[in-house]
Amino acid sequence: MLGTNGVHGVSHPRVDDRAGVPPGTASFYFRTRKALLHAAAARVAELDVADFSRMAELAEDPAAQFTGTAGLARIVMYVNSEPWLTRAKARYELALLAGRDPELATTLDESAQRLYTLARDVVAHWHPDGSAPDPALVEDQAIATLALINGIMLTFVAGQPAVDSADHLDRLIQGVIAGVAVVRERGAGCEG
Amino acid sequence: MLGTNGVHGVSHPRVDDRAGVPPGTASFYFRTRKALLHAAAARVAELDVADFSRMAELAEDPAAQFTGTAGLARIVMYVNSEPWLTRAKARYELALLAGRDPELATTLDESAQRLYTLARDVVAHWHPDGSAPDPALVEDQAIATLALINGIMLTFVAGQPAVDSADHLDRLIQGVIAGVAVVRERGAGCEG
Repeated sequence: MLGTNGVHGVSHPRVDDRAGVPPGTASFYFRTRKALLHAAAARVAELDVADFSRMAELAEDPAAQFTGTAGLARIVMYVNSEPWLTRAKARYELALLAGRDPELATTLDESAQRLYTLARDVVAHWHPDGSAPDPALVEDQAIATLALINGIMLTFVAGQPAVDSADHLDRLIQGVIAGVAVVRERGAGCEG
Repeated sequence: MLGTNGVHGVSHPRVDDRAGVPPGTASFYFRTRKALLHAAAARVAELDVADFSRMAELAEDPAAQFTGTAGLARIVMYVNSEPWLTRAKARYELALLAGRDPELATTLDESAQRLYTLARDVVAHWHPDGSAPDPALVEDQAIATLALINGIMLTFVAGQPAVDSADHLDRLIQGVIAGVAVVRERGAGCEG
């Protein structure tokens, strides 16, 4: 309801109606509107964490084709299909409320941290020569990769997807990781 | 009001109060709540377009230090300061409404197109050797640059800025542009 109709579309009576429970049930469990929206945020975070755990398992299995940048790209592309698209819209609705509600921000931060960790792991394992990468470089690559992913997901939510396949997105993610390394080396070269 | 308090914080009486005009003025000019929010969107778009025009002028003047990727990075960093930060929050509030209101989407699309054009110009002029770049490559570089920028602006709005200086962001933007080209060449090499 939050993803489809926005914050305005959520009320205790509507939740009762949608869930097919007796009138008054939602307000019995969640007294205030704030409590109802916090419960929705907790549920979004719970679903996200379950998905990320499943993705992390798949990433361990090369046959599952969820490893590396290609795996990350496939995960992001899911957000352009249901039920993930509506969930992403709900997450943005909640994120805007969270700017005025620190408790809500904390609840949502858990899923954000999981996505960051996922991106960071992919970046850290990307270095093809097996060399131990510079931590500051990995940090920069992870920041850029995560910003790219969030920017792409925003185009899905807006109904104007900037990429149409996991392969396309994979090339962009690889480009970001490779390019941030190139620019950093060039900078280091100038300093030396 | 929209950026600070969200859609819930906007009402005809509050607008009258904030603007210091007689009660009923806002509802005289904007009959419905929808009309009031559409007017807010039109104003956001107007301010954005004025800013982008000014930036484009500055980009013509090398002394203004608003050229190329460094200029783009400086523009984006402004969004982490007022009044641009609150305006960005208002834009996200409106963008979520726009998913259920095509007319609103059209109004907001104008500023989005301006930002895309700005990113695309920077990318097209970036090719250092002066060669005519492959249009498909420029398109990919622009998509990735824009997604990066939008992802970074999202971290500003969320109060957790992923970059703290224009120099840092400039390196990430350069990395994205350079890297997307590298990965594309590598792909072309494999095909040939």
